[in-house]
Amino acid sequence: MEFSIIGYDPIGAWLKTADTMEELLPYRNTGGITWIQVKDVRDGNLLTPLIDCFGIHPLTVEDILDTQQRPKAEEFDTYLFITFKEARLRDEADAEPEVAQISLILTKDTVITFQQSSGISFDGIRRRILNNIGRTRRMGADYLAYLLMDTVVDTYFSALDTLGGRLEDFEDRALDENDAALIPDLQRIKQILLKIRRIIWPLRESLTTLLPPDSDLINPELEPFFKDLQDNVMQAVETVENYREILSGVMEVNLSALSNRMNKVMKVLTIISTIFIPLTFIVGVYGMNFAFMPELGYPYAYPIVWGVMILIVAGMLIFFKRRHWI
Amino acid sequence: MEFSIIGYDPIGAWLKTADTMEELLPYRNTGGITWIQVKDVRDGNLLTPLIDCFGIHPLTVEDILDTQQRPKAEEFDTYLFITFKEARLRDEADAEPEVAQISLILTKDTVITFQQSSGISFDGIRRRILNNIGRTRRMGADYLAYLLMDTVVDTYFSALDTLGGRLEDFEDRALDENDAALIPDLQRIKQILLKIRRIIWPLRESLTTLLPPDSDLINPELEPFFKDLQDNVMQAVETVENYREILSGVMEVNLSALSNRMNKVMKVLTIISTIFIPLTFIVGVYGMNFAFMPELGYPYAYPIVWGVMILIVAGMLIFFKRRHWI
Amino acid sequence: MEFSIIGYDPIGAWLKTADTMEELLPYRNTGGITWIQVKDVRDGNLLTPLIDCFGIHPLTVEDILDTQQRPKAEEFDTYLFITFKEARLRDEADAEPEVAQISLILTKDTVITFQQSSGISFDGIRRRILNNIGRTRRMGADYLAYLLMDTVVDTYFSALDTLGGRLEDFEDRALDENDAALIPDLQRIKQILLKIRRIIWPLRESLTTLLPPDSDLINPELEPFFKDLQDNVMQAVETVENYREILSGVMEVNLSALSNRMNKVMKVLTIISTIFIPLTFIVGVYGMNFAFMPELGYPYAYPIVWGVMILIVAGMLIFFKRRHWI
Amino acid sequence: MEFSIIGYDPIGAWLKTADTMEELLPYRNTGGITWIQVKDVRDGNLLTPLIDCFGIHPLTVEDILDTQQRPKAEEFDTYLFITFKEARLRDEADAEPEVAQISLILTKDTVITFQQSSGISFDGIRRRILNNIGRTRRMGADYLAYLLMDTVVDTYFSALDTLGGRLEDFEDRALDENDAALIPDLQRIKQILLKIRRIIWPLRESLTTLLPPDSDLINPELEPFFKDLQDNVMQAVETVENYREILSGVMEVNLSALSNRMNKVMKVLTIISTIFIPLTFIVGVYGMNFAFMPELGYPYAYPIVWGVMILIVAGMLIFFKRRHWI
Amino acid sequence: MEFSIIGYDPIGAWLKTADTMEELLPYRNTGGITWIQVKDVRDGNLLTPLIDCFGIHPLTVEDILDTQQRPKAEEFDTYLFITFKEARLRDEADAEPEVAQISLILTKDTVITFQQSSGISFDGIRRRILNNIGRTRRMGADYLAYLLMDTVVDTYFSALDTLGGRLEDFEDRALDENDAALIPDLQRIKQILLKIRRIIWPLRESLTTLLPPDSDLINPELEPFFKDLQDNVMQAVETVENYREILSGVMEVNLSALSNRMNKVMKVLTIISTIFIPLTFIVGVYGMNFAFMPELGYPYAYPIVWGVMILIVAGMLIFFKRRHWI
Repeated sequence: MEFSIIGYDPIGAWLKTADTMEELLPYRNTGGITWIQVKDVRDGNLLTPLIDCFGIHPLTVEDILDTQQRPKAEEFDTYLFITFKEARLRDEADAEPEVAQISLILTKDTVITFQQSSGISFDGIRRRILNNIGRTRRMGADYLAYLLMDTVVDTYFSALDTLGGRLEDFEDRALDENDAALIPDLQRIKQILLKIRRIIWPLRESLTTLLPPDSDLINPELEPFFKDLQDNVMQAVETVENYREILSGVMEVNLSALSNRMNKVMKVLTIISTIFIPLTFIVGVYGMNFAFMPELGYPYAYPIVWGVMILIVAGMLIFFKRRHWI
Repeated sequence: MEFSIIGYDPIGAWLKTADTMEELLPYRNTGGITWIQVKDVRDGNLLTPLIDCFGIHPLTVEDILDTQQRPKAEEFDTYLFITFKEARLRDEADAEPEVAQISLILTKDTVITFQQSSGISFDGIRRRILNNIGRTRRMGADYLAYLLMDTVVDTYFSALDTLGGRLEDFEDRALDENDAALIPDLQRIKQILLKIRRIIWPLRESLTTLLPPDSDLINPELEPFFKDLQDNVMQAVETVENYREILSGVMEVNLSALSNRMNKVMKVLTIISTIFIPLTFIVGVYGMNFAFMPELGYPYAYPIVWGVMILIVAGMLIFFKRRHWI
Repeated sequence: MEFSIIGYDPIGAWLKTADTMEELLPYRNTGGITWIQVKDVRDGNLLTPLIDCFGIHPLTVEDILDTQQRPKAEEFDTYLFITFKEARLRDEADAEPEVAQISLILTKDTVITFQQSSGISFDGIRRRILNNIGRTRRMGADYLAYLLMDTVVDTYFSALDTLGGRLEDFEDRALDENDAALIPDLQRIKQILLKIRRIIWPLRESLTTLLPPDSDLINPELEPFFKDLQDNVMQAVETVENYREILSGVMEVNLSALSNRMNKVMKVLTIISTIFIPLTFIVGVYGMNFAFMPELGYPYAYPIVWGVMILIVAGMLIFFKRRHWI
Repeated sequence: MEFSIIGYDPIGAWLKTADTMEELLPYRNTGGITWIQVKDVRDGNLLTPLIDCFGIHPLTVEDILDTQQRPKAEEFDTYLFITFKEARLRDEADAEPEVAQISLILTKDTVITFQQSSGISFDGIRRRILNNIGRTRRMGADYLAYLLMDTVVDTYFSALDTLGGRLEDFEDRALDENDAALIPDLQRIKQILLKIRRIIWPLRESLTTLLPPDSDLINPELEPFFKDLQDNVMQAVETVENYREILSGVMEVNLSALSNRMNKVMKVLTIISTIFIPLTFIVGVYGMNFAFMPELGYPYAYPIVWGVMILIVAGMLIFFKRRHWI
Repeated sequence: MEFSIIGYDPIGAWLKTADTMEELLPYRNTGGITWIQVKDVRDGNLLTPLIDCFGIHPLTVEDILDTQQRPKAEEFDTYLFITFKEARLRDEADAEPEVAQISLILTKDTVITFQQSSGISFDGIRRRILNNIGRTRRMGADYLAYLLMDTVVDTYFSALDTLGGRLEDFEDRALDENDAALIPDLQRIKQILLKIRRIIWPLRESLTTLLPPDSDLINPELEPFFKDLQDNVMQAVETVENYREILSGVMEVNLSALSNRMNKVMKVLTIISTIFIPLTFIVGVYGMNFAFMPELGYPYAYPIVWGVMILIVAGMLIFFKRRHWI
């Protein structure tokens, strides 16, 4: 587990890193804003100094340690607790989404973040604070919370973009009648969409509970930012739904392409059989060994039979053609 | 980027066009209504004078510049921000809908519109103001906003009409059993419908937030106009849903027509085989080379076999006919 | 266009008809109730005297003239505006529903109705007023509005009854395996149901806005009547939904009947082939011309081969029978 | 039509029956509770004394006489009107549910019930009142209304139990591959479920309107009873939904069983053909009459050909076995 | 039936067990918290002392005794009544979920639990109280209720985990084309999911009614615990929905795998027939017995026919290969 603390105010900013929480707590920026970052959360015991210092509720600690926690936001007496998940999807065709949980505690002047080891690094935000880029240093702890959440929500869009690219691939392949293995691949994409939706969907509700009229924790001045965040989450949800509809469209097209192709094959094969079976009968007739079969002795019988058979084939082909069977 | 400004009041109206915003701002009509039109929005920097002059929130600027923005309406302290999209569909069978975003800022006496280069021209409304046609000159900025939105909502209906025409085409072709390529075409129409719905649907909510009890920005006198707008959007949404139901009906009819046709083909072919296979067996019997086959020496055996075979064919045909198989 | 005016109060009633509105307006019953009927609405100009006299909003006029208007109810300062549609379905199997729009303006003491030429005649209600049948003469303008709407809602039930009859027909035919053309017919019924639902559904909402708590325009004494009307509309909506479920049931039954039948045909045909193919092989064996085939010289070989073949056929039939294939 | 009146209070109870209402009205129990039972309601005229005596609204009378009325509850000035339906299902496999309408008027001290001739007899409740079993005699008219409704709701559960039994039957038969006639039977059950749902569903809403906060007609002390009733109705609704899901599961299983079976049949038949067709070709080769076919004169040719053919069959069988086709 | 009573307060705790309720009631802990446990509830008469002592409503008693009761929560004057169900699923592939009902009555200082014989033992909680592990002894009766409910909710997750394991199994087997018997197994899992959902779903609502603003029975300090419980229930519901979606995905994959396989088989078989049928015709031609067939006498005719036939087979194979049919 890695602990670091960033203190900042409009005038300055500093960063300290340590292996235990005890060493860091004295560096809290009492006059300004403090951001405590806990990476690779595994052992609840190491969090004890933090828990005691901020009066964190035992259930919150449980939620922080449980990496299967459903995204949610909860208001406590002295702090606001939000837990959500990032989603990343590598560009390779078969990759599964990587999900990492981020928990965030927001008090009046402090933000504490808890991340899994595989999670996103918030290095960009750190740099902006330390180098005083943008307005972050001039704003409160709630603005920092907004920035962190916004960074995570952006991961959804890049994951969805990657997925959108795969979907387009499948859209092209769906009509290629030779590709029978598409259904399991499409089902896999569907599972990924389900997984991402389960991450994004509850976040939408959580954000609602952060904003008035449900809550008054966020500075009214920051409301447009959180509304914007909510808009983005909503847009991500809609993109997921949209992809699901496209996906089922692709499936339908693919199934109908496959069945079309099968039907064509069977039709051609059946037509070949249908043409030869009557001919086989005719040659069978003149293979009979009856003593009295006048045709057998007739000199032109053999070429006549050939002619008849060619006529039959031609007739059948014309008949099939007229009915648009071939 | 193109900037223009229209000032008007019941007495007069003027229009000025320029390449930068700075040149235009002094021409704002302080006593009457001002409409600032920004076309081909690309570069946020050129908007700076406008942003400063009207105190536009940074998030609003972001939404204006992001052409992928989901339609929404937001109320700020000094202005109302609405962003929505127009949809146009050319009359050719394969055309995709062209979507262009329009953002609108409404203050007490000013309307600012931001459009993409490909967007609709509001020339008709300009002409009505400059030539004092209709009541626009006598009304406030909110009526201008209504007029602009109404013009955009009308694009939905013309796009849906075009789509409706294509659907009717497909309805006729669905039953034509030879048209196996319909499914991908229908899927394409479905995608277009999804795209249009994603444009219209959020506008419905946005309009709700503009009207009482949610908001009191719009002059109560104009309420019937906005209600009417809402009605139109609702009607567009319903038309989309309706088209989707028709579409899936067409698909079902088409699939059942295709499978019907395939079945007919297979049945005919199978019946031909079924008729000849027993005959082939019979002629095979008399093609055997046994030394002692009494029938072979019997003079009328050959015509009798023919007769038997004709009887069998007739019997089978009658049997099939009775069972309505042919 | 046809104009008529009916004035009535508990004591008397009179009817006047004219070709222009101007002639009729002086006959308004200032002390009692007035019903102005405009039939075959086409030209907005002819309505000008009416519009001016009652202060009708331009948007209301637009809605009256637009025959594609979605049913809705709107409250204005001095009047209530309701527009809805009647639906009639002739008894012939293929008939499409005939839809005609009716708009109604209700003020404190006046009802104005606007109808399309093809619309319902309200002759029954006229007669009840003129001949003082029932309580209409003793009630206010809102009761007249109720009566008119009730008459229109009744058209839905008779249209739905006709449709119900057709559905029952199809329910019987769905199991008749020879009827392959049912799907397009069922799709047509589905379209008609969709059309009727689009007429009825928005009326449900409209009626809600007429009643408390949403509105207080209707005399509280009349509330049970409007509640009853709402109940009827609700019942019509439910009937439509019900028919749709029955319809999809009929479709499923029909599709499974068709595929069942196809399967039976193919099975019989395939069984015939399967029985004769081994026999054809056997007779082929003894049609070979090898010099040394001991069986050929054996005197009982021919009847033995026949016996073997009969045994094979019997064996296969028993096998198929046992497995319930025939 | 049959009229009866039961008057009761904690001290005593009496029952009177008559053919007209006039004879019974004087026996109303002014100090206690009165239950007026009207059975086999057909003729509205005979109800006139009742209507006048209790001031029943004309629309209520209409609802009582219309046996197709959708279940609903309505509050009037002096009484509460509830109409609902019972459902009974006989135990035979094909029986349709029998539906009978019951209307109930509840005033402060009187309950009036109107039943169809085929309806449930409330003899059990009568006996409990007359013989003073249970607490009914000590409670008010609202408790009697609760008892009557509870009796009717119980009919739903027994009907659903019967239906559940049938469903279980079908669940077993669904996998029996020889049963091709299941689909129409299942559709019939689906129709019955739809019918029962249409009866139960609106009752749920009706009960909501009886209870606070929507109404304050029911004695607060009786609230738990009506909540319990509502619970029961809810449970009936859920059972219906549950059955519908089971039903569609059964359908899917059955369809996949049928298609499985068909596939097996076709596969076996096709395999038989496939085995014999190459053999038939081989024997055809040696049936050719060429002058120079060296094999024909070779003494062991015939047994060799047999050997080759047996090898081919064995090879094909092994191949099919390996691929799990047989 | 088994009765036991646990009394506890921060200082001490005791447990008494008896066969009748009368013996236990004097041991209620008037100063602290009392937990009365009734196991194997069957006979309502034995509950009478309890009912009288706590003033339990007759409907509550009915609900406790009815093991088919739908989960619900109800507030009475002196107590809160909650009934819910546990679900357990053994690890064997075919096991059905075992469901047992638990009813809980919560007063200010007492918790009474009623369990079915097959139900969960709350031994863990007993031990924590008696040995003073954790904070239970320091908290009120509502915390005990929370602990009990939490224990039951945990059973859902372990049942769902078991089910999830089975589902994963099926996911692997779905693509294995030889496994035709999957559909009924998948249907069985679907039934189990339905059963579990029916248990969990109503609990979600019940918990809502326990918490503010709907109720104020729970100590505000305990709100986070009950919110957490609600979160867990919600997560269980979502897991069920998720499994249902996965299930239908597995079904689709399986059906498409089965039909794919069938199609492959039929294609191979049909291709074999198609190749041999023209050859059989050719050998049939030279099996004819015409007197004048010049080819028959030509010495190289036989090998030439073989060559032609080999060419035909090769041509067909190439044709099929090119079209990707084999």
